[in-house]
Amino acid sequence: MNKQRLEAFTDGVYAIVITLLILDIRNPDVAATALGPALVRLLPQVVTYVLSFFVVGMYWFAHHRVAHQVKLINGTFTWLNLVWLLFVSVMPFPTSLLGRYPLQFIPIAIYGIDLILTNVTGYVITVYLVKHPELAVAPVPPAALRALLPVYIISNGIYVAAIAIAGILPWVSYAMYAGVLAWLMVRYARRSNPFKPAAQAPRSAGRASRAAD
Amino acid sequence: MNKQRLEAFTDGVYAIVITLLILDIRNPDVAATALGPALVRLLPQVVTYVLSFFVVGMYWFAHHRVAHQVKLINGTFTWLNLVWLLFVSVMPFPTSLLGRYPLQFIPIAIYGIDLILTNVTGYVITVYLVKHPELAVAPVPPAALRALLPVYIISNGIYVAAIAIAGILPWVSYAMYAGVLAWLMVRYARRSNPFKPAAQAPRSAGRASRAAD
Amino acid sequence: MNKQRLEAFTDGVYAIVITLLILDIRNPDVAATALGPALVRLLPQVVTYVLSFFVVGMYWFAHHRVAHQVKLINGTFTWLNLVWLLFVSVMPFPTSLLGRYPLQFIPIAIYGIDLILTNVTGYVITVYLVKHPELAVAPVPPAALRALLPVYIISNGIYVAAIAIAGILPWVSYAMYAGVLAWLMVRYARRSNPFKPAAQAPRSAGRASRAAD
Amino acid sequence: MNKQRLEAFTDGVYAIVITLLILDIRNPDVAATALGPALVRLLPQVVTYVLSFFVVGMYWFAHHRVAHQVKLINGTFTWLNLVWLLFVSVMPFPTSLLGRYPLQFIPIAIYGIDLILTNVTGYVITVYLVKHPELAVAPVPPAALRALLPVYIISNGIYVAAIAIAGILPWVSYAMYAGVLAWLMVRYARRSNPFKPAAQAPRSAGRASRAAD
Repeated sequence: MNKQRLEAFTDGVYAIVITLLILDIRNPDVAATALGPALVRLLPQVVTYVLSFFVVGMYWFAHHRVAHQVKLINGTFTWLNLVWLLFVSVMPFPTSLLGRYPLQFIPIAIYGIDLILTNVTGYVITVYLVKHPELAVAPVPPAALRALLPVYIISNGIYVAAIAIAGILPWVSYAMYAGVLAWLMVRYARRSNPFKPAAQAPRSAGRASRAAD
Repeated sequence: MNKQRLEAFTDGVYAIVITLLILDIRNPDVAATALGPALVRLLPQVVTYVLSFFVVGMYWFAHHRVAHQVKLINGTFTWLNLVWLLFVSVMPFPTSLLGRYPLQFIPIAIYGIDLILTNVTGYVITVYLVKHPELAVAPVPPAALRALLPVYIISNGIYVAAIAIAGILPWVSYAMYAGVLAWLMVRYARRSNPFKPAAQAPRSAGRASRAAD
Repeated sequence: MNKQRLEAFTDGVYAIVITLLILDIRNPDVAATALGPALVRLLPQVVTYVLSFFVVGMYWFAHHRVAHQVKLINGTFTWLNLVWLLFVSVMPFPTSLLGRYPLQFIPIAIYGIDLILTNVTGYVITVYLVKHPELAVAPVPPAALRALLPVYIISNGIYVAAIAIAGILPWVSYAMYAGVLAWLMVRYARRSNPFKPAAQAPRSAGRASRAAD
Repeated sequence: MNKQRLEAFTDGVYAIVITLLILDIRNPDVAATALGPALVRLLPQVVTYVLSFFVVGMYWFAHHRVAHQVKLINGTFTWLNLVWLLFVSVMPFPTSLLGRYPLQFIPIAIYGIDLILTNVTGYVITVYLVKHPELAVAPVPPAALRALLPVYIISNGIYVAAIAIAGILPWVSYAMYAGVLAWLMVRYARRSNPFKPAAQAPRSAGRASRAAD
C-alpha cells in the first residue's frame, strides 16, 4: 500500500461527498409565482447542507492530520481507513433525511450516530498508529493519545446528549452538533496557525504537539 | 496542512462541480415525435449550463492563481478555502433554478449573490495572504492588492447592477454576468500568455505582476 | 502513457463509484409518522450498499497491488485497465437492483456476473504483465501467477455457485458473496501487514511474494 | 498555470464523466415478476453506456497524448482545454438521449455533433501547440500535424456521414460511431505498444512519431 495513492483516493472520496451534498437541494419546480415561498421551504435543507459541508470538511482536516503522522501503510490500516470513509460517504443520506424531517427524532439520531461512528473510527485509527510505531513518521507517544482522549469523550458525549434530547428539544440538538463543529474548527484553526514546514520543524517536539492536536 | 493535498482536494471539488452541472439537463422523456420541441424547451438550461461551466472554470483558474503564491497553509487558510469551495459547490443549485425560471428575478438574484460571495471570499483570502507573509512564496506587496481591488469592485458592482435590473430586464442581467465572465477570461488568458516557468522567472518582479493579476 | 496519470484517473473512478453508491439510498419522503417503518424497508438497500462499498474498496486494493508491479504502461494495458474500470463503474446499477429486489434470482445473478467479469479482467491484466516483463518493475515469475490461480478459481467458483443457488436460497448467495469478500479482505490485510517500504525491501524476494499475493 | 494541476483537474473531470454515465441506467422499479422484460428494455441504454464509456476513455487517452508534449501552460491553453472538457462533460446528456430514443434522428445527430466538436477542439489544441513551440517539450513539427490531419478528416467525415444516414439507417450510424472508436482504440494500442520511458527515448525521433500518433 502506497501512502500517496491512499491519500489521493481519500481526498477524492471527501471531495465527492462534500460536492454531492448539493444534489439534495432540488429545484422546487413550482409555478413561477410560487417560487418565493417554495424556496423558503427549502431553508431546512440549506441549513443541514451547510452543517454537513463543514462536518465533512472537518473530517477531511482530521484525516489530513492523521495521515501527516503516517509513513507506511499496511492492509489493516487501509481497511480501517475504508471504514472511516464508509461513515463519511454515508453522510449525504442522513443530511437528506434531516433536511426533509428537520424536527423529528429519528433523523437527528441517525445523523448523530453517523458522527459518533466516524469519530470513533478516527480514534481507533490513532490508537492503531500508537500500537504500530513502525507505520508512523515518528512514534506517536501514548501521552499524545491521552491528550486526545478528552476531545473525543467531550464531542461524543455532546453528540449522545444531542440524540437523547432530540425528541423534546430538536433545536438544542442542532445547536449541540453545530457547537461541537465550531469548537473543533476553531481548535484546528488555532493549533495549526504557527504551522511550520515539516522540513524545518524540530522533529521530536513538532511530532508530539502535532499528535496532541 | 499540506499544500499538495489542499490542492488535490480543491481540484477534486472543482472537477466534480463542473461535471455535475450536466446532470441538471434531463432527458425530456416525451414521445419520439415531440422530441424536437422538447429539446428546444431545454435551451435555457443549456445556456445556463454553459455559463456556469465557464464560471466554475474561471474560479478554478482564480484559485490556481492564489495557490501559486502560497507556500505554507495553516488552519485558518484551510477554513477560508473551504468557505470558498462552499460557494463554488453550491453552483449547481442556482444554475438549476436559472435553467427552470430563466426570466424571474429571484433565480437571477440568487445566482448573482453566489457570484458575489465567491468573489468576496477570494478577495478575503488574498488579503489574508498579504497579512500573513509567512505563508506566501514571496510576500505579496500591498500594492499588488490595491491593483486587484478595482477588478473586484467593477465585477461585483456589475453583479449588483445585474441583480437590481433582473426584475425588469432579465436579458440585460445575463449579458452582464456573461460580460464579466468574458472580461475576466480574456484578462486571465492575456496576462498569463507569456507565462514563464517559476524556476526561471525573476522572483521579485514575477511575483508582483502575478499578484496583480 | 504515464503511470501516474493512469493511477490518478483510476483512483478518481474508484473514489467516485464508491461514493455514488449512497445516492441509491433515497430519502423515503413519507409522512413523519411513517418514517420509522419506511426506514426499516430501506434495510436491504443498506445491506447491499455496505456490501458494494467493500467490494469496490477491495478491487481498488487489488488494482493498487497490480499497479505496484508496473513500471511502464502501453496502449493495450490502458485499454485492459479501462475494461476493468468499466466493470467496476457499472457496480452502482447491480447494487441498486439488488437493493430493490433483494431476493430475486436475476439481480443476484447480475451482481455475481459483474463480480466474475471484474475478477477475470484483473487476472487477464496480471497474465498480460507476466507476458510483458518489459512493463513490470521486476519480471513477474510465472510461479507467482500459478500461485494466484487458485484464489481466482475459488472466488469465481463460489460466485458461480452463488448464482446457481440464488433462485432457491438467496440468503446463501449473499453469504457466499460476503464470505469471499471477507476472505479476500483478511488475505490482503494479513499479507501486507509486514509491508516494508519499497526502497528497503530486498528486490527479488519482495517482488515474488508480493506478486503471489 | 501549472501543468500538474491542469492534469489533475482534467483527469478528475474525465473520471467523473465516465463514472456518471452509469447513473442513467436506472433501476426499472417494476413488480418482481416483470423484472426480466424490464431489464431487456434497458438494453439500448446498456449499449449506449458502453459506447460512451469507451468514447470518453478514448478522449482521455487523446488528452494524455497531447499533455505529454506540453511543458508550459498559458491562459489560452487553459481555456482551450476547458472547451475540450466542456464537450466531454456534456457526454452524459447525448448518451441519455440516445439510450431513450435509440433509433431517432435527433439523438444520433446530437451525439455525432458532440463527437465532432470534441474532435475539432482536440485538433485546434494541437495546432495551437505547433504555433507556440515555447509551450512544447520539443517543438511539434508541422509535418507531425500534417500526418494527423487525415485521421481527423476521416473520423469526422465518418461522423458526418453517420449523422446524414441516421434518419434512414440508424443502425449503420451506430456501426460507424463504433467503427471509428474501434479504429482509434486499435491505433492507440498499437502505436504505443513499444512505448519507451521518456528519459530513455531518443528525443527528436520519439517526439515526431509520438506527435504523429
